[in-house]
Amino acid sequence: MQLTINCDMGEGFGLYRLGDDAAMMAHIDLANVACGFHGSDPSIMRETVRLAKKCKVKVGAHPSLPDLQGFGRRAMVISPAEVTDIVTYQVGALKAFLDAEGLPLNHVKPHGALYGMAARDEKIATAIADAVLPFGVPILGMAFTAHETAYRDKGVELIPEFYADLEYDGDGNLILSRVHDAVDPAKAAARVLRVMRDHVVTTTAGRDIPVKAATVCVHSDTPSAVAIAAELDRVLRQT
Amino acid sequence: MQLTINCDMGEGFGLYRLGDDAAMMAHIDLANVACGFHGSDPSIMRETVRLAKKCKVKVGAHPSLPDLQGFGRRAMVISPAEVTDIVTYQVGALKAFLDAEGLPLNHVKPHGALYGMAARDEKIATAIADAVLPFGVPILGMAFTAHETAYRDKGVELIPEFYADLEYDGDGNLILSRVHDAVDPAKAAARVLRVMRDHVVTTTAGRDIPVKAATVCVHSDTPSAVAIAAELDRVLRQT
Amino acid sequence: MQLTINCDMGEGFGLYRLGDDAAMMAHIDLANVACGFHGSDPSIMRETVRLAKKCKVKVGAHPSLPDLQGFGRRAMVISPAEVTDIVTYQVGALKAFLDAEGLPLNHVKPHGALYGMAARDEKIATAIADAVLPFGVPILGMAFTAHETAYRDKGVELIPEFYADLEYDGDGNLILSRVHDAVDPAKAAARVLRVMRDHVVTTTAGRDIPVKAATVCVHSDTPSAVAIAAELDRVLRQT
Amino acid sequence: MQLTINCDMGEGFGLYRLGDDAAMMAHIDLANVACGFHGSDPSIMRETVRLAKKCKVKVGAHPSLPDLQGFGRRAMVISPAEVTDIVTYQVGALKAFLDAEGLPLNHVKPHGALYGMAARDEKIATAIADAVLPFGVPILGMAFTAHETAYRDKGVELIPEFYADLEYDGDGNLILSRVHDAVDPAKAAARVLRVMRDHVVTTTAGRDIPVKAATVCVHSDTPSAVAIAAELDRVLRQT
Repeated sequence: MQLTINCDMGEGFGLYRLGDDAAMMAHIDLANVACGFHGSDPSIMRETVRLAKKCKVKVGAHPSLPDLQGFGRRAMVISPAEVTDIVTYQVGALKAFLDAEGLPLNHVKPHGALYGMAARDEKIATAIADAVLPFGVPILGMAFTAHETAYRDKGVELIPEFYADLEYDGDGNLILSRVHDAVDPAKAAARVLRVMRDHVVTTTAGRDIPVKAATVCVHSDTPSAVAIAAELDRVLRQT
Repeated sequence: MQLTINCDMGEGFGLYRLGDDAAMMAHIDLANVACGFHGSDPSIMRETVRLAKKCKVKVGAHPSLPDLQGFGRRAMVISPAEVTDIVTYQVGALKAFLDAEGLPLNHVKPHGALYGMAARDEKIATAIADAVLPFGVPILGMAFTAHETAYRDKGVELIPEFYADLEYDGDGNLILSRVHDAVDPAKAAARVLRVMRDHVVTTTAGRDIPVKAATVCVHSDTPSAVAIAAELDRVLRQT
Repeated sequence: MQLTINCDMGEGFGLYRLGDDAAMMAHIDLANVACGFHGSDPSIMRETVRLAKKCKVKVGAHPSLPDLQGFGRRAMVISPAEVTDIVTYQVGALKAFLDAEGLPLNHVKPHGALYGMAARDEKIATAIADAVLPFGVPILGMAFTAHETAYRDKGVELIPEFYADLEYDGDGNLILSRVHDAVDPAKAAARVLRVMRDHVVTTTAGRDIPVKAATVCVHSDTPSAVAIAAELDRVLRQT
Repeated sequence: MQLTINCDMGEGFGLYRLGDDAAMMAHIDLANVACGFHGSDPSIMRETVRLAKKCKVKVGAHPSLPDLQGFGRRAMVISPAEVTDIVTYQVGALKAFLDAEGLPLNHVKPHGALYGMAARDEKIATAIADAVLPFGVPILGMAFTAHETAYRDKGVELIPEFYADLEYDGDGNLILSRVHDAVDPAKAAARVLRVMRDHVVTTTAGRDIPVKAATVCVHSDTPSAVAIAAELDRVLRQT
């Protein structure tokens, strides 16, 4: 089993920048490019797609709830039909930049609160699959959650992923925060190797839970994200 | 010469509605569907694309400056690169809804102040053409302006249009206002017949100026827009 | 007990209009003026404040969650501190227009999903009270909910209100929908008279539940809102 | 003549940060706090007001054109009435945070493109004065421009300012860019001393032009802004 590294990219906005995209691109396989609803704007999207092309990184769309101020990290009550519509809109917008650069759309990965809502609520996950189906690409998500069942039922492939820089709580749920804490690169690499070898992660409660993963995620706004990605890159190339 | 009728559609937002899209669709050939920057949102875009499909109306994208509060009718200082980026984004977003419904993208028509800026400034018109070129569709615009020269230089086809519900000032420029005045349907039809027969329109200064048009536009937010479209539809079918 | 009539006002946005504010103003005592987060914009706010002044209607602020596309009717996960901050911002913005016109700020009434969240969650209600306290005005809300307890604990006066145009479900909760259904003016008036006389309302389950109200609300976007307000106005003047 | 130092503050948005506000506060006299239209949000506004209070820095409002993505640095065609309305809204919003913290509103300084438009166009400057007049505070702006004449005609005091980190072109106009270039702190201090002693600045064309200034501005997003502010602070304390 060879894991790829995926990272959220292009999450600045206007004059604002978030993370060091250029440095991260050297270490990742898949870029999940923000589509303007939680971060990014049309100019940053074009720039990020071009950077990925230069670095030979595959590009997926990273659609979000409509919440620029909350960076898409605040769950909201939204109907499944609205979810389908906002995902269609954002993936289409990103695909236009890929088309202009002659790159294929590789995948879709829901962002932040939308990702968490889809993990817990099959209706939301199904609504995402409804939007992604016409694009004919897989979705990055978490196995053993509604991501897995809902996407499969709609005939959309799941690429299961693991988070190198987030903890899992006692119930096995990913701990998603508005601002990410720093993580030791060596510890992140050790977690990833454990997933590859034993297919488990240790929760904050000290219990091992099963993990199924084909790709590992590093957030570009985690402090020392570049060092984490570089260390994972080094370790994964050795395996 | 057979003129088609085009109309801006799907220009509501959230709970707000603007114009009677369902009634207009019965009388038009081309729908220019708003893409969320001056009006519309993802749910209205899907609904409008489905309505057009049901009514067998061809659909184009209607991208705007980013100005929801000003309905895209306030000119702004924006770089050509930014114009290309916002047009790529919006056209891509609309195209995703068309792809999902199995409809082709028929054309692009810049909205409001962006349309006016492109008519006056070749750099802006060229920036629009740069965005539209990869989509391989024509642009609706005004002949005898920078629309014509810039699109031609980029190899993008212009579909020249005439405005049934707007006046042309003494210099031959279209009078664009934030809120549209009511227009007598019979007068609008007479203007269109004059364009078809004599290829001229009479300006507010009383002078005839040449007009080149393959399509005629009615705004859905002009008072009595449905009556105007119905009258034009009736008259154009007779010719 | 003399009830006043309150109504949400100035809920258009840009070119969009919602409800017939000018007609409603003739029949109401209190205008809850939208502050730009779910509807309204600075120009509509000034216009609405001037209209209220002309009609001698008292003006309160009507702050919302930041959700223009969802008209503030989608609940979201937001921290109490963020709630306090957005309410401070919006009430301050409205107060500036009142100051410019020489009118006092009369009250605050949370809008839509924020109102519902505050009814159910004491932390959210307390966060609203924290923002309103420095303004020294009462809050319109529902008795027998967290509105009542949280505002009282903070020393902010509650003006309890009743909804003439919304139903209460079997559990006594207000049924809040994104789009409001039409209501028969005579039926609305009968409900209000029942509240005044017997202090109860009949839920959709047929059970009477206690109601405490000093003011009755009519939504300007309820179909036939003007007829409802006129009928309530007529009936309340007779009592 | 003793110059004060003023600086634009609180110009982050959501998770994004711009400039090192905490470090800058130690060196400045006046903070122009962004109000949410070009940067900032309600939570950042409260945090910035509290930081200024702690540092005993006077606070003014820094209202902008409605252009978050362009950071308020793109001029737009907007009516004087709209300018008055957006300034009233933003100043009122900031004032609410000041009221809550027991601080007075000290001044208003228009931001970015709005500032430049007001310098060139008396109608825009007058519209700003119309909004500020009821607040009873002075406006920071440039002498020898429409700022001076329009504010005076409306009876609003102008506090004339000089830019330590921007160049003036051959015509004596400030060169405003979307992104600011780095400036040598010693050079900035020399320019300021020259203004104090000789009341002139040397333009990029090598010509000296008259400058009238009671305060000097440093932008927090200029590279090495803290070093510039610290050097100006040091030099001004010596004079």
